[in-house]
Amino acid sequence: MKIAIYGYGNLGRGVELAVTQNPDTELFGVFTRRAPEAVTTVLDTTKVYPAADIAKYKNDIDVLVICGGSATDLPKMTPALAADFNVIDSFDTHADIPRHYAAVDAAAKQGGRTAIISVGWDPGMFSLNRLYANAILPDGKDYTFWGKGVSQGHSDAIRRIEGVADARQYTCPVQAALDSVRAGENPDLTTREKHTRLCYVVAKEGADKARIEREIKTMPKYFSDYDTTVNFISQEELDRDHKGIPHGGFVIRTGQTGVSGEHKHVIEYSLKLDSNPEFTASVLIAFARAAYRMNTRGETGCKTAFDVAPVDLCAMNRDEIIAHML
Amino acid sequence: MKIAIYGYGNLGRGVELAVTQNPDTELFGVFTRRAPEAVTTVLDTTKVYPAADIAKYKNDIDVLVICGGSATDLPKMTPALAADFNVIDSFDTHADIPRHYAAVDAAAKQGGRTAIISVGWDPGMFSLNRLYANAILPDGKDYTFWGKGVSQGHSDAIRRIEGVADARQYTCPVQAALDSVRAGENPDLTTREKHTRLCYVVAKEGADKARIEREIKTMPKYFSDYDTTVNFISQEELDRDHKGIPHGGFVIRTGQTGVSGEHKHVIEYSLKLDSNPEFTASVLIAFARAAYRMNTRGETGCKTAFDVAPVDLCAMNRDEIIAHML
Repeated sequence: MKIAIYGYGNLGRGVELAVTQNPDTELFGVFTRRAPEAVTTVLDTTKVYPAADIAKYKNDIDVLVICGGSATDLPKMTPALAADFNVIDSFDTHADIPRHYAAVDAAAKQGGRTAIISVGWDPGMFSLNRLYANAILPDGKDYTFWGKGVSQGHSDAIRRIEGVADARQYTCPVQAALDSVRAGENPDLTTREKHTRLCYVVAKEGADKARIEREIKTMPKYFSDYDTTVNFISQEELDRDHKGIPHGGFVIRTGQTGVSGEHKHVIEYSLKLDSNPEFTASVLIAFARAAYRMNTRGETGCKTAFDVAPVDLCAMNRDEIIAHML
Repeated sequence: MKIAIYGYGNLGRGVELAVTQNPDTELFGVFTRRAPEAVTTVLDTTKVYPAADIAKYKNDIDVLVICGGSATDLPKMTPALAADFNVIDSFDTHADIPRHYAAVDAAAKQGGRTAIISVGWDPGMFSLNRLYANAILPDGKDYTFWGKGVSQGHSDAIRRIEGVADARQYTCPVQAALDSVRAGENPDLTTREKHTRLCYVVAKEGADKARIEREIKTMPKYFSDYDTTVNFISQEELDRDHKGIPHGGFVIRTGQTGVSGEHKHVIEYSLKLDSNPEFTASVLIAFARAAYRMNTRGETGCKTAFDVAPVDLCAMNRDEIIAHML
């Protein structure tokens, strides 16, 4: 199975590495909108092509993994490429998924291709766990907690404040809320009760730290609804202690069965990830395998993680899977 | 969707209740090998039929949920019924699954029916989580822990010891082992290091408790490989404090990504269940829905949880699921 990467940032680099862990996949190359000679890939062997040339290779690539941003890249890229390639993306603007789905579905059907959108861990593995848990326990309540992990969007928001040289923001689940959910107490939790925000900020020389802290804590949408902690540190400390991109979280459904709901059940799925982009890339490769298999069976159009039989994600053959993993 | 229950014990009662939580299902009735008039159902409205008459109803039942034991019932029942009915079972003798699969597949294909075997939480939801995690992290290690929960087989083994009036055995995961796995230490764990066994025993009057305790702790396969605690209590205490059938457990895969595996990831799925049979029954109903849908699409033969697209488990329609759960 020949995989190509369209867009080469952290996620693209993760896909490049994930291909090496899957013996049934090989990397065709990376497509970039930058000058190919200006791109340094993780692996020496990776070929780099101009994104503008992609159409030339429509018969050489089994699945194209589109590694663009959800705000402006993917809404254009995925529908544009889905007529010529089997594609995977990690579109994560939850509210716009139906519109994105419709655009990609039309293109993929027209070209006889298979697209799987919104793959990763949320949306993706978290969505799957919400669905399984809802199917099993119709009478229950869902909770999702994120973190501890780096939010790129929130880190960027801090960096835009005057006087800030650099910043890193962690989203942290509130332990007391997690404990209450796991105990089956079915709490109604406000935004503030579920997560806190922890910021490490490098101030420019002479900057007013009190003002910076105030601007962060009162920033609407990003911070004002949360208990936020701001720590000022040096650039050296930030680079030394906070250069990773960890993330993770928890999907929990609590529900009840029995004559009068007297039996409580807790279903919990959690991730603890040292590298958000590399883990997401690993999920993308598993679903790329499924897209390719579904396409060879004539199952075309736009799909989601919900439409993929789990057996199609795995390199092992079905008899082995049934014998060893059931 | 008309569901019938074949075999009426704890699991059958759970299915009877689960049907009431799923508005798209209704209960056709219970089939029993006992005299129907001797069976008291949980719900007054449930009809009871003799198992011998089942073939008469082959056109009246959409899915038959077979609630028998894996040792002797299911290897006969499921292949015998799969030619005439869409069926679900919870066959859980892991080593014999390929043989059971082959027998059920032949029958279901011959009759144009759809069977899903080995549904529940282990095998079932735990298997699914092992598969997803393996597909995502090819370079990693799997761990399964069970408990804290009642093991019926181990409780029965204690009851067969001379001088024992009643008993209840709990399997408990060892917290230190769980902590080590979650910390990404990739320990190699012996049987003894993973689980302990906790026994509550009611001795008959005048019985030699020291001998009973010794016989339990040295019983091969069941107890001798474990650290086992034996507590003698009264029948009243057993009935008051240990009449529930809780269970649960943990499926964890740890793995690594990156240029040299420098990034560690932990995927964990866990269940905490007040009633093992009622939760298992809830899983069976979700897969009964999928079996029925797959059969209406002409997807016949024997399937497993691995073959079922998650969307087929859920009563909501696909557009709603994509819009609200992705």
